[in-house]
This record gives sequence, structure tokens and C-alpha cells, in this order.
Amino acid sequence: MPVFLDTTDPGFEPAFAALLGAKREDSPDVDAVVAEIIADVRARGDAAVLELTAKFDRLDLTTETMRFSPAEIEAECAKVPDSERAALETAAARIRAYHDRQMPEDASWTDAQGATLGWRWTPVSAAGLYVPGGLASYPSSVLMNAVPAKVAGVGRLAITVPTPDGVVNPAVILAARIAGVDEIYRIGGAQAVAALAYGTETIAPVDKITGPGNAFVAAAKRRVFGKVGIDMIAGPSEILVIADADNDPDWIALDLLSQAEHDESAQSILICTDAGFGRKVARAVDKRLETLERRAIAGASWRDYGAIITVRDLDEAASLSDRIAPEHLELCVADADGLSAKITHAGAIFLGQWTPEAIGDYVGGPNHVLPTARSARFSSGLSVLDFLKRTTLTRMTPQALSTIGPAAETLARSESLEAHGLSVTARLARLND
Amino acid sequence: MPVFLDTTDPGFEPAFAALLGAKREDSPDVDAVVAEIIADVRARGDAAVLELTAKFDRLDLTTETMRFSPAEIEAECAKVPDSERAALETAAARIRAYHDRQMPEDASWTDAQGATLGWRWTPVSAAGLYVPGGLASYPSSVLMNAVPAKVAGVGRLAITVPTPDGVVNPAVILAARIAGVDEIYRIGGAQAVAALAYGTETIAPVDKITGPGNAFVAAAKRRVFGKVGIDMIAGPSEILVIADADNDPDWIALDLLSQAEHDESAQSILICTDAGFGRKVARAVDKRLETLERRAIAGASWRDYGAIITVRDLDEAASLSDRIAPEHLELCVADADGLSAKITHAGAIFLGQWTPEAIGDYVGGPNHVLPTARSARFSSGLSVLDFLKRTTLTRMTPQALSTIGPAAETLARSESLEAHGLSVTARLARLND
Repeated sequence: MPVFLDTTDPGFEPAFAALLGAKREDSPDVDAVVAEIIADVRARGDAAVLELTAKFDRLDLTTETMRFSPAEIEAECAKVPDSERAALETAAARIRAYHDRQMPEDASWTDAQGATLGWRWTPVSAAGLYVPGGLASYPSSVLMNAVPAKVAGVGRLAITVPTPDGVVNPAVILAARIAGVDEIYRIGGAQAVAALAYGTETIAPVDKITGPGNAFVAAAKRRVFGKVGIDMIAGPSEILVIADADNDPDWIALDLLSQAEHDESAQSILICTDAGFGRKVARAVDKRLETLERRAIAGASWRDYGAIITVRDLDEAASLSDRIAPEHLELCVADADGLSAKITHAGAIFLGQWTPEAIGDYVGGPNHVLPTARSARFSSGLSVLDFLKRTTLTRMTPQALSTIGPAAETLARSESLEAHGLSVTARLARLND
Repeated sequence: MPVFLDTTDPGFEPAFAALLGAKREDSPDVDAVVAEIIADVRARGDAAVLELTAKFDRLDLTTETMRFSPAEIEAECAKVPDSERAALETAAARIRAYHDRQMPEDASWTDAQGATLGWRWTPVSAAGLYVPGGLASYPSSVLMNAVPAKVAGVGRLAITVPTPDGVVNPAVILAARIAGVDEIYRIGGAQAVAALAYGTETIAPVDKITGPGNAFVAAAKRRVFGKVGIDMIAGPSEILVIADADNDPDWIALDLLSQAEHDESAQSILICTDAGFGRKVARAVDKRLETLERRAIAGASWRDYGAIITVRDLDEAASLSDRIAPEHLELCVADADGLSAKITHAGAIFLGQWTPEAIGDYVGGPNHVLPTARSARFSSGLSVLDFLKRTTLTRMTPQALSTIGPAAETLARSESLEAHGLSVTARLARLND
């Protein structure tokens, strides 16, 4: 049974705080092991990667077979049914169109003092994308990471995907090819992250690593941060649905279950203005759970972390939503735009009852890599900006320097940085000659 | 003596690689200590912060005196000479004007399938700014962190600045007031970072922490990343100057020294097309080092990490520059714009001989918090974007869902996520009723 809460209940506040504070992830402390793996890969390169792959993935590779050959890629792609290929191409095109619009503008202007200022965006030269193996080896995630990188102009994009016992999801390989990925390696875990960050004899180092992974991958990304850029550390998925009574309870139930089925640690929350509607949704969830393929996972998630909260009105719903700062937020209300305007913290908003969150997972266009665990308070979903960096530009004329320079001399003196000041003073002296 | 290199020398490549790989920072492993401090602050709040402040800063505070009162702020500000106040106000105005232009646009459009897509930017609600104490307590850094936060619309901005033995730099307090900082606390070290991230009885938690600090601060920021957002982990400062022979050697010498005087681990590199000019600059550096106030620091930096590299032409200079990916890049050449266009990786570029880097430290307008240690390959200087986050928006019409939805159903089936597919199927079924 999920938790039922009502904001008019005097015990609401502590119960809601408990819901917010619930620790859904038992992330094992693998940091020491990961540190050793990274040191090993830095010291021994390919040899370490191959040994660790044999150990963890039960797969004997060589430096030659570590990377998928063009023929192997071709063979995997050929296994994907046409309908899936067409769907992946539709998804890639829509993701590309959305992310194309994110490309930021360069700028340059000259101010009243005569200083010409601006900035310029350039792509990261090389990026690495970690793709999990096994159950969570999702072709959609390949598109969501690789397409923005290529839109940004990343020259070299390498994927690592573990293939335990040699098994790979062909759709992952096809998605990589559709997205324009340049290299695919059959490795995973902390050793793959280390290889991408530091390079080996076979794998050239990259500048940025993105993509989800297990505790080892997350710990490794945290450790190599600084040597390379990383994206966020992803936690279990979450959805918050705000719905009025004018919805089909079964639709809302399916939306809640589409997060719950990801992971036993996923969290699905419904906020509704009508307690009776909430009960109907709960019954619809139970009914769907009778037959759902992943009912064991979805059922556990719903039982342990699910919640149905009845609120007085939609303003209260917006306020609770901001405290949750959900990864995914569905607004199934008559005036979804009006309610959306009241929301400050959310990774992605889905407006109206015809926009199930699953559309955003695949073909909406916006990225499905989104901030979890309340981090929408301070971070954003993946975008082209993650694969770009900005260089600021400054040009002074002699006149501009004579106007602005003295303030710099004063501040340099105040900070006891004499050479800073003198670098201005020496130039101004020439002007006064 | 700095290193003298010449690209025509057969030994150049290994020597340049050694220069690139030089480990300039001996960051002590303080991670275990920092983990304990954070756990202590989480468990005991104010009490832990007060004890640690007494221990490390030799300062007995109470929960009442932990924060600067309005009267104390007023008293500190009154100590700052008028010329410095005016310079800080000039700097703040220029930094504000530059960062105002960085504010990104929201977007919304409806595509051919009838899907309305877009995004919206919102500010982080609360941010914390770490300001180092002692020698590196720079008012300019307060402006560079606080002004972008306020331009972004951060509602609550708290500063922590350690005041060892009770000593504070009044200009830091004035800079905070000019920038519109809301709260100033007399605490520092890992305990300050922990207090900002997790909150105590006196300090409300923030969502994002920025600002430079020592090894303890850096380790603490790395540890609280995820609970809150952080900016980059800053390393020692660097400058690369590319100069032709048509420059005053003394100006270039001062520009190199203005980085070297920051820190014994700072690095100043000159790339020039004329070996004779390089020798003149080296002599000018030596001459300035005879009298420079911070000659001990600047001299050590220049001796241990300084380099003068002679290249065949400016194309070669651009190529070496990209391998260095410098934090600061000065282009003292006739066609600085032309050379700038050939550069891909740099935190900030200063164009022409009338633009000493020190202008960018104080009053140019662009941020002086920039990527160090070659991280300009994948990251950017601080900007308003560090204090904003983006929410993606998606709205499907029934028509759009019927066009796009089937691809989502196919991909959901392929990923064995049945509820994802059913959430679309159930809606499409209604349309076909």
C-alpha cells in the first residue's frame, strides 16, 4: 500500500517530511574498490581493463576485440526489427530537432567605455558515454546522451557498454549508429570510466563523460571529476502527477506505474484535489499490477515509496511540488499552463492529460536525462550545453584602459597584488608620455 | 630560471609534454578528516561548527555572533577608503552589465506534429558563497561570485568567510554588501561547507555552493556534491601569453608576473615567434622580480613552472595553446581577433596588448572564476547559468499523441517497459473509440 496523506490532517507535515527524507537508495560504499580500479587502469592501461572485464563480465577480450568492428556493428544493427529501427529514427530526429534549438549564441558588443566584450561557445573535442549493460541497457538513453553531444559538435564520441557473457542489446548498437557515435567498446564498470578519463593504449582519453550507471560507475565518475567533466550522478527515477478529478484513473495509474516499473527504488507520487479520485487511482494501480509484466518491481516501488496526497487546492499542490522538486512532473489539470507557471523546481513538466511522461522518455524531443533526488533545485537535464564550453572575450582600447584601468589599480593595491596593478600602470604610463 | 623551449628543437615534444603534465598542486589527502567534519556538522549542527571554529580559527563564537549583524557590517564597510569603495562599485557595475547579457531566453514552439515544446529557466532559491580567509580573502572574488547569483535572481545568498583570530578584510564585507549578499557568517573550512549544504539551527541550507578554498574546502565541496550543486574545483592560476616581437617586454613580463604572484603553484607561460623577444621578456621579469613585493612567491612560481616557448608561427602557437587549454590567454599580436578564431580551448581570452589580464581580474566585466588545470577543455567560467536551472516543457494534443505515440509504444516494448507503452496505448484507445 502506498502512503495516503491529506494536507488537512494535523499529522501531515511530519508525514510529508518523512516522505521527502526517505532514503530510497542504499548505495554501497564502493569508493575504496573504485579507487583501486582507477589506479590500476592508470598504471597498466589495457591489461588492467581486460583483466577486470574477464573478472566482472566473464568475457575474455583482447585489445583487438575490445572495440566493436564496423562489421560487428553492422551485424548487430541488422538484428533490429524494422519497426524498432523506424521508431529509433523518429526518436532521434525529434531529439535532434529539440536540441538544435538549444544551441546558444555567441555575443560581442562594445560598451560606452570602448571595451569590446563578449563570449564564444565551442564544443568539447571528445566525449565518452557510459551505457549500462543488462536490464538497464536502454537504446533510448544512448540517443538522449549521444544526440546532444553530436548537435553540440563533439568531434569524437566513444561509448562503453559492458556485455556480460558477451551479450549485447542490438538496439543499443543501432541507436549509437543512428546518433553518429564514433567508437563502441565492450567494457563497463569503473574500469570503463577510468579508461575514458585517462586513456589506455587502445582508448584515447576523452574530455567529458556522461551516462548512467551503477554504484561503481557513479563512484568512478565522482573520482575522475576534475580530470574530465561529468554529468550529474543519477539516482532512481521519480514522477509526481498533479491531477484534478477530471481524469481517467487508469491513465494516471499507468503514468505512476511507468516510473515504478523502472526500479524498486523509483518513486511515484500523486497529488490530487479530490480524495475520492485518489482512491480510484489506487484501485486502478492495483488492478494493473495484477497483470503487469514487471509487477514485482513496480509493486515493490509503489508499496514502499508510492504516495497519494490530497490537497486543498492547486496552489497547495504547486507548493508541495516545489518541495519535492520532482524529476518528472505531470500536470493533468484543466489549466496546466497556469499551474506550470506556479512551479519553480522540476526537471521536466508534461502539460495536460494527453502528455504521458513516457512520451518524454522516448520521442517528445526534450532530454530524458533529468535531475533526480531533489536536485532539480539546482540542476537541469542534459542538454547541448553539457557538451559545450564558453570562452569569455575582452578587448581594451588605450582609451578604455585609461577609463577603467585606475579602478583595477586600486583594487590590485587593496589585494596586495602589485604586479596586477603594475601591468595596468605600465601601459597607462605610455599613454601619458 | 623558467624553461626555455623551441618547437624546432628535436627534444621539444617530450619537454612540452613534461610541462603539460607537471603536477603543480600537492593536494594533501584530507578526505577522511573532511568526511568526519561533515558527519559531525550533520549530527550536531551549530555546536560542531562552533567547536571547529574555536579549534581552527582560534575564535570563540556563539550562535548569536556566528553571523555578522547589520551594525557589524556597517562598521566594517565604514573602514574601507572611499577610493576602494568607488573602485568596487565600478567593478560591480561592470560585472553586472556583462552578466546581465548572459541571461538565457525561455523558449516555446509548436512543431509540425502539433507538439508544443520548450523550456523555462528559473533561479536557484538559495546559494552559498565560500570566501577564503587570510591572504586569499579577495573582495574581487566576492563580486565575481555574488553578482552573477543576484543577476540570476537567487533569492537568498549567504557568505561564509573564516576570520582567524577574529580578523576580517573589511573590503570583503563591503563587496558583499555592494553585491547584495543577504547573510554573512564568520566560519570557514569544511565545517562551513557542511553547514551550507546541510544546514544547522542557525544557518538554513542552500541549494548551491560556489567559491574557492583550500584542500579542506575543495574536498568538502566534492563530498556534498549531489546534496547541493557546486561550481568547479579550482586549482592554481595560470596564464598563457602569445606575443609577437612588437610588444614592450616589460608589459609582457608584468602580465606573466601577475599570475606568478598569486601562488607558488601558479604557472605563467609565454609563447613567442621571436626567440630574442623571449629573452628580453625573461630579463624584464628578472628585473621586476628585484623589487616586486611578492617576489618570493612570484619568483618561485616563475622558476618552478614558468616557460618561454619559441614557435615557428602563430598557427603553431594556437595549436600549443589548445593543448595547454589555459585559464587565461593573452593575445598580444597584431591580428588578435584572427588568432583568437584559431583557439578552441581557453577560459578567457584577452585581445591585444592594451588588455592586460589583470583587467579581467577586476573590472573588465567577464568572470574571473575560470577553469584551471586544463579543464577549459570541458568547462567554462562562472556565469549566471551556474545559478539557474532549466525545466523542459512538453504538451501533446490528441492529434500529436496519435502521430508520435506509436513510436513510443514500440520503443517501450523493445525496452520491456510495459507500463510506459500502456500509458500511451490507453490514451490512443480513447481516440479510436
